[in-house]
Amino acid sequence: MAKVVTMGEIMLRLKTPGHSRFVQTGSFEVIFGGSEANVAVALAHYGHQSYYVSKLPHHEIGQSAINHLRQYGVKHDYIVRGGNRIGIYFLEAGASMRPSKVIYDRAQSAIAEADVNDFDFDSIFKDADWFHFSGITPALCEKAVLLTEAALKAAKRHNVMVSVDINYRKSLWTIDEARETMIRFMQYVDYCIGGTELFFNTIHRKEELTVDDYKQMLKGIHDQFGFTNLVTTLRETQTASNHTIGALGYDGIDFYQSKDYTIQIVDRVGSGDAFAGGFIHGLLTKNNLQDALEFGIAAGALKHTVPGDFNLVSEEEINRLVEGDSSLRIQR
Amino acid sequence: MAKVVTMGEIMLRLKTPGHSRFVQTGSFEVIFGGSEANVAVALAHYGHQSYYVSKLPHHEIGQSAINHLRQYGVKHDYIVRGGNRIGIYFLEAGASMRPSKVIYDRAQSAIAEADVNDFDFDSIFKDADWFHFSGITPALCEKAVLLTEAALKAAKRHNVMVSVDINYRKSLWTIDEARETMIRFMQYVDYCIGGTELFFNTIHRKEELTVDDYKQMLKGIHDQFGFTNLVTTLRETQTASNHTIGALGYDGIDFYQSKDYTIQIVDRVGSGDAFAGGFIHGLLTKNNLQDALEFGIAAGALKHTVPGDFNLVSEEEINRLVEGDSSLRIQR
Amino acid sequence: MAKVVTMGEIMLRLKTPGHSRFVQTGSFEVIFGGSEANVAVALAHYGHQSYYVSKLPHHEIGQSAINHLRQYGVKHDYIVRGGNRIGIYFLEAGASMRPSKVIYDRAQSAIAEADVNDFDFDSIFKDADWFHFSGITPALCEKAVLLTEAALKAAKRHNVMVSVDINYRKSLWTIDEARETMIRFMQYVDYCIGGTELFFNTIHRKEELTVDDYKQMLKGIHDQFGFTNLVTTLRETQTASNHTIGALGYDGIDFYQSKDYTIQIVDRVGSGDAFAGGFIHGLLTKNNLQDALEFGIAAGALKHTVPGDFNLVSEEEINRLVEGDSSLRIQR
Amino acid sequence: MAKVVTMGEIMLRLKTPGHSRFVQTGSFEVIFGGSEANVAVALAHYGHQSYYVSKLPHHEIGQSAINHLRQYGVKHDYIVRGGNRIGIYFLEAGASMRPSKVIYDRAQSAIAEADVNDFDFDSIFKDADWFHFSGITPALCEKAVLLTEAALKAAKRHNVMVSVDINYRKSLWTIDEARETMIRFMQYVDYCIGGTELFFNTIHRKEELTVDDYKQMLKGIHDQFGFTNLVTTLRETQTASNHTIGALGYDGIDFYQSKDYTIQIVDRVGSGDAFAGGFIHGLLTKNNLQDALEFGIAAGALKHTVPGDFNLVSEEEINRLVEGDSSLRIQR
Amino acid sequence: MAKVVTMGEIMLRLKTPGHSRFVQTGSFEVIFGGSEANVAVALAHYGHQSYYVSKLPHHEIGQSAINHLRQYGVKHDYIVRGGNRIGIYFLEAGASMRPSKVIYDRAQSAIAEADVNDFDFDSIFKDADWFHFSGITPALCEKAVLLTEAALKAAKRHNVMVSVDINYRKSLWTIDEARETMIRFMQYVDYCIGGTELFFNTIHRKEELTVDDYKQMLKGIHDQFGFTNLVTTLRETQTASNHTIGALGYDGIDFYQSKDYTIQIVDRVGSGDAFAGGFIHGLLTKNNLQDALEFGIAAGALKHTVPGDFNLVSEEEINRLVEGDSSLRIQR
Amino acid sequence: MAKVVTMGEIMLRLKTPGHSRFVQTGSFEVIFGGSEANVAVALAHYGHQSYYVSKLPHHEIGQSAINHLRQYGVKHDYIVRGGNRIGIYFLEAGASMRPSKVIYDRAQSAIAEADVNDFDFDSIFKDADWFHFSGITPALCEKAVLLTEAALKAAKRHNVMVSVDINYRKSLWTIDEARETMIRFMQYVDYCIGGTELFFNTIHRKEELTVDDYKQMLKGIHDQFGFTNLVTTLRETQTASNHTIGALGYDGIDFYQSKDYTIQIVDRVGSGDAFAGGFIHGLLTKNNLQDALEFGIAAGALKHTVPGDFNLVSEEEINRLVEGDSSLRIQR
Repeated sequence: MAKVVTMGEIMLRLKTPGHSRFVQTGSFEVIFGGSEANVAVALAHYGHQSYYVSKLPHHEIGQSAINHLRQYGVKHDYIVRGGNRIGIYFLEAGASMRPSKVIYDRAQSAIAEADVNDFDFDSIFKDADWFHFSGITPALCEKAVLLTEAALKAAKRHNVMVSVDINYRKSLWTIDEARETMIRFMQYVDYCIGGTELFFNTIHRKEELTVDDYKQMLKGIHDQFGFTNLVTTLRETQTASNHTIGALGYDGIDFYQSKDYTIQIVDRVGSGDAFAGGFIHGLLTKNNLQDALEFGIAAGALKHTVPGDFNLVSEEEINRLVEGDSSLRIQR
Repeated sequence: MAKVVTMGEIMLRLKTPGHSRFVQTGSFEVIFGGSEANVAVALAHYGHQSYYVSKLPHHEIGQSAINHLRQYGVKHDYIVRGGNRIGIYFLEAGASMRPSKVIYDRAQSAIAEADVNDFDFDSIFKDADWFHFSGITPALCEKAVLLTEAALKAAKRHNVMVSVDINYRKSLWTIDEARETMIRFMQYVDYCIGGTELFFNTIHRKEELTVDDYKQMLKGIHDQFGFTNLVTTLRETQTASNHTIGALGYDGIDFYQSKDYTIQIVDRVGSGDAFAGGFIHGLLTKNNLQDALEFGIAAGALKHTVPGDFNLVSEEEINRLVEGDSSLRIQR
Repeated sequence: MAKVVTMGEIMLRLKTPGHSRFVQTGSFEVIFGGSEANVAVALAHYGHQSYYVSKLPHHEIGQSAINHLRQYGVKHDYIVRGGNRIGIYFLEAGASMRPSKVIYDRAQSAIAEADVNDFDFDSIFKDADWFHFSGITPALCEKAVLLTEAALKAAKRHNVMVSVDINYRKSLWTIDEARETMIRFMQYVDYCIGGTELFFNTIHRKEELTVDDYKQMLKGIHDQFGFTNLVTTLRETQTASNHTIGALGYDGIDFYQSKDYTIQIVDRVGSGDAFAGGFIHGLLTKNNLQDALEFGIAAGALKHTVPGDFNLVSEEEINRLVEGDSSLRIQR
Repeated sequence: MAKVVTMGEIMLRLKTPGHSRFVQTGSFEVIFGGSEANVAVALAHYGHQSYYVSKLPHHEIGQSAINHLRQYGVKHDYIVRGGNRIGIYFLEAGASMRPSKVIYDRAQSAIAEADVNDFDFDSIFKDADWFHFSGITPALCEKAVLLTEAALKAAKRHNVMVSVDINYRKSLWTIDEARETMIRFMQYVDYCIGGTELFFNTIHRKEELTVDDYKQMLKGIHDQFGFTNLVTTLRETQTASNHTIGALGYDGIDFYQSKDYTIQIVDRVGSGDAFAGGFIHGLLTKNNLQDALEFGIAAGALKHTVPGDFNLVSEEEINRLVEGDSSLRIQR
Repeated sequence: MAKVVTMGEIMLRLKTPGHSRFVQTGSFEVIFGGSEANVAVALAHYGHQSYYVSKLPHHEIGQSAINHLRQYGVKHDYIVRGGNRIGIYFLEAGASMRPSKVIYDRAQSAIAEADVNDFDFDSIFKDADWFHFSGITPALCEKAVLLTEAALKAAKRHNVMVSVDINYRKSLWTIDEARETMIRFMQYVDYCIGGTELFFNTIHRKEELTVDDYKQMLKGIHDQFGFTNLVTTLRETQTASNHTIGALGYDGIDFYQSKDYTIQIVDRVGSGDAFAGGFIHGLLTKNNLQDALEFGIAAGALKHTVPGDFNLVSEEEINRLVEGDSSLRIQR
Repeated sequence: MAKVVTMGEIMLRLKTPGHSRFVQTGSFEVIFGGSEANVAVALAHYGHQSYYVSKLPHHEIGQSAINHLRQYGVKHDYIVRGGNRIGIYFLEAGASMRPSKVIYDRAQSAIAEADVNDFDFDSIFKDADWFHFSGITPALCEKAVLLTEAALKAAKRHNVMVSVDINYRKSLWTIDEARETMIRFMQYVDYCIGGTELFFNTIHRKEELTVDDYKQMLKGIHDQFGFTNLVTTLRETQTASNHTIGALGYDGIDFYQSKDYTIQIVDRVGSGDAFAGGFIHGLLTKNNLQDALEFGIAAGALKHTVPGDFNLVSEEEINRLVEGDSSLRIQR
């Protein structure tokens, strides 16, 4: 199996129970998550040597984040300890026509203030097969841009395949800041997930976008910037509790489209990361983009049924869904 | 913002967790609620000076009811302490084809046994803009009829606008008792919510009623009794877990109909009160009945997604729904 | 009311909360259940003298199983104490496209190792009206086959009506073993529930089977083996959260088909047993197979809305559903 | 084993979790309990045919009370259904120097309003060996006095031994009312538990009372009223979390005193009833008052370690304590 | 009753359940607390008009802090909204020889970054009777020093009595920084709680200090700095679960010493604040320092039995303890 | 840091919440534990490369056991997957005079049925510094005796230090079986923990044993069998909630005795293992037996304050206790 490396910010996730609103709650459910950590856990579940790179404070909440990762098989050898804070996000699950809500409290987290010298990227990428990052890390602050760039350069020095999930967060930076940085980073990227709203920002994304609109956008990104291997998920939100998702890929020549899945949602946070994790695993083990998309979107669909950020499903469970076993009887 | 007054019975609500049946439960979730208190909380959330009038025993359960109200911004200056009991209702949430179940244990509650002299209605309604009550209070007992009437007379003495939610409860009084009393009270009422089953009781309400049936009934009520400004919610129950709701209004001249919302229910208790609260806020702040209906029904729809009796949503969240933002993406 | 006897294995059921996966859980919800015990509880709820026959260890977990049964009105006079283990099953509730999962840990349970001499079947079936068992008990081991056969012979000696739920469990025995045993037992059986996959195993059951396919299979079973009074439930699984169920019966002459119910699932475990329990009650109290099927399938439908193995609904609630009261308003 | 009958009011007990105060709680733990029901459960645990006599409403909360009793082996054949309310008591557990608090909400409960004709006392006491009641039942209202007296007369008609736990509750009646009634009832009583504060009310009970004071009082009660077989528990409260308890008996001739136990309290509610239950079992099975006291006080001591009203300990566990096995190692 | 003003930082408190360690927890109990807010709640419970001054972010966690305060009767008219963060503290409850642990995450909280101009201190202190603050607020940052000083000057302009709880926190500033600032602030202070370790820092505080040592230190502080009205709590820690507390006061002439209380701890956080709240109430309502100390230390003792930061006990409960009612029977 | 190897059975631990009895519980708290696994976790916490050797079934409960270990830093490289069952133990926490209770359900667990060939002991003990096992593993069955012996021989082949915790379990084998086997194994053992009741069985262990009795027994074991380096814990049980513990060692020449600790118990399960883990760490890092005993007993004492089987305390926390810092103030 492959050595895969992800880098990013793992946060303390504090969720109200069930569908309770923030102002009602007397408790928070405690787990840890974050876009890249979620990918790391998925890849560990598919049997890879999955290394997560980050920085966490010395205190017990930082330790708990590490424990949470290693509980699910992620290797923490490259996690540096130090800094003062772990980023936090508060989560309230929506329902029906009430959207879910996230309050971020991630300023001055250890990873945002980490120094390039905190990490030995040549050790990290030695013998590595894949590096995945997201647009959230460079969005944190200028130091994090430098850190990301150092990682990307090291990855390329070691001939590691690189994927990115654009994951534009408007609360962290402006679309112009994001565009400037991410376009610069694309030279290191082999597979790009998402980003239509960022790279193709003349069109404001609306819900009514058709698959053809998306095809046009992917082609536009390719034509304008020269990026290849672009994929995006397609999501139709009937209510906050029911979505339909699919995936679309473009390799600069052909379009690839996955099956659709209609989902009654248990927890949608991390479903994009579950897609990314499944897609990377697909690329590492399948022959073609189409199969990678199918595995990725089935993984992403299943994530919606699992509480928490992490996609705690096995390769076998995903394959069963890909192969269309829809009996859904109790598995005894 | 307006000074609004509501009066009624706030009860201890004891709900089994999730969808557990009464005979299964080892615990009850504890909140407080009641038709008029629910309206009071909604109005506090929209920024009004929301005063709740009731009577509660001196003991800590009575105190907890007050704390629950003031936690959400309701003013308790006019709540009198005394009496022996706080009314209780036990709740079991239905699902699919199993309806929800309520067991009332409200006999001899403090408010049911309250005396007119317990309250100084002239202080209460001084500078007030709105008074809302429901048909539940006079249904409690004869003393409560007198209390309600005293409040209504005082409200009108102070030129306060009055709304009623008819809320006929067959376990509390007969339809004839209710008709007699509520028709008498309508002379004080400016806006009347519900009541078709009460005022128009020659037709037994069935599920198959069309909007036109409702229009006919509202018109009939108007023609027969001379009531104006009648509104009603329209509810179609696909299952105990899925409903479609809308609202219909009649000002004696024109009919007004809101958008419909189809809802996957988290907790439907209090949704009628949420409509009432939203509708009153609409009347206090919008130019017309149509807009008030739209705000009211969107408020009522959102209530179904909030656990508990209270509609803990903001004016901004309701407006976003009214304006049709249906993206339902996670709000980060 | 009738004296009904069921015999089988009641297990400790350990379920993760909500939709949590096994690897996520920090607690298990504890109840007890098992195919025949579930039928026993249902029959107790409809007012019968419901006796459950089994063997349970002396320790407190064994005692808790008895307490759980008697809490819901089942008579435990014929439960023998002894043996070392109570069977356990671990349950993880699926959602959407993720199926539910059961891990059995029932080897060497007290009932599996029980001896025929542990029970005085002549006392047990004295004055009894009905005996129900399932194919799970003889599947446990050879001793359990002997035990079941002894019970069946005693039941017939006492002219007790006998029903079986075939309930083939592939983890316990092969289809050939099951066929050989169950066909032999059919001589004692008056009503047979399920079994199309077992008795008619030339056709592999697929999801796409139509009602006509089922009719053909029931007729085939009747023609080939001479069994009469065959019933089966029909289940269409839209997702792990939504099913449509109905029932089909064949008395060797005519087919009988119930209404269909589409269900949003709270807990589907035990729904087949709920059907069996309702169907037996229907046979004991109604005039005909059609009405028994209707009561049975309505009971089975309602079970999906009740957490746990047991169908904690009343005869009145089932009748209301049979009679088509679909108002689903809160019952106050 | 004996047929024992207890009669009284079983209530819904709503306790805040841990040491939370009423105003803090978001949930109540739900069990059922009451002085006589607690005795009934204890006696069922020691192997007796334990019948509980009461009246409970038809609704599911009433049913849950019955289920709670039969879960622990109490026979409910003589529980009548009807009336509107089940009594409720709210409980907040104290700690250290903060005493526990109980809020009663038992007005107009079904048993308080029960009629003598609701019960067939001749059936109830046929073949019975023992009848136990407490001073709480006649304290409820005048109808309950009549009910209690009817039960006592019937018990004596059937030569049933009678015990009473005086259990004076100042919130239910005055000391004069209680004295008048309980003195009248003592003609039917064979064993009297407690009552020093009631029968000997010239001395106000203070904490500093010595064993000699108690002896003098028991003797005084005997001399003044002619009552024999008087027992009382002795309790020294170091803090709300630590008590020392013992028991003292007087048969009109000799005094009997039990060992003392010092206890770290888990839940002290029902410990007096646990003593009563153990004491009655002692009288039914041991040779002398001393042994009955020892068994009773050990049972009462163990109750303090069990959450809830019921003393869910076995005869064997009590005997081990009586015999002084103090190893307290984990029992594997 | 008096108008009392407190100012400080209220934090989100995240506690692991029971005695769980941070690395074990799957949930946090959510309340809000902080030294001065705890005093504000106590004073509201004793019937005062208790105003809390702080700054909180606009988001729902900030709102929840306000709701938490007003639930318990604190007035939030002077709480300003703005800033990005609410301070957080993580709490793990110790036991026996394991001390409790607090992890602070309060950098850049809204109040730490608040500006003097955010508050209208002349309104705040108009007609006020008392102002209480603690050494924690100026410890936050330089801006907070200015804010505190502005408040103190305004308080004195309005002739408001001022008390301070020195509450030295070594994680926030050095002892020299603290000394310099707090000595400067003492000119505005009428009553000073604690501070021996700060003002008298030539002696390192050890556990073995006797009451005489404390007397000497208080006298030393008075002699050296000229401060009058000094009080301090005396705490002896047997284990993390058992403490003995008392209080000592010095008015520059005489020493005053309270009764001692030995406590089995439920939650000791906030017990110092509970003393402060009780002491202030004592000063506002009693004739002398001795009585104020007694009320304060009884309040502080009771706090140890209440979960959470707030001392949710009534004046009546405290008086009962002061008066030595140690019956500790269940209060029915 | 050292490479340490432990081998044994990790079980699913199912505990009732708080002090609930088995028959009361509606849920079990889920963790995993076992004598040797507990030692492995402790050693991982002190910074060693801690490898745990066992066999676990493929299913998700087996996976959860692995996740639980690696969450706390134990290396699972040598855990083999296979077999059908994971051992289970049910736990009910005692209080005061009620002892804790364990129900084992460990028959036919994967490790009990493991084959010597399942493990490559030469890889396992390559470069290892320490091997720890307990008498529980060979007690499981004959196969487990062979497995243990194979491990011991391999350990000695690789010059690994060996410690054993005798841990005699009377429910698994007789004292004669245990003696025969354990005496044979002692040839491979360098440090022996416990065993006085086994090796010195002419004297029945009673609570009243003095330190001198223990010294005599340790000396007797040494003299009779030639074992050196014997240690034992000394435990005095005041109640099920309060114990005093210490440790005693004998190196064949001198006796070593640790400090005593008196403890209010949160969870005593695993405290012996915590002593073993601490003692081994002491031996690996300190200069002498006395210091190892002190570290061990302080570790064991702290375990009583941590819920669960594992001793989740740091070396620093233990050292602070060893060094006598008894301030027990909140650590902020």
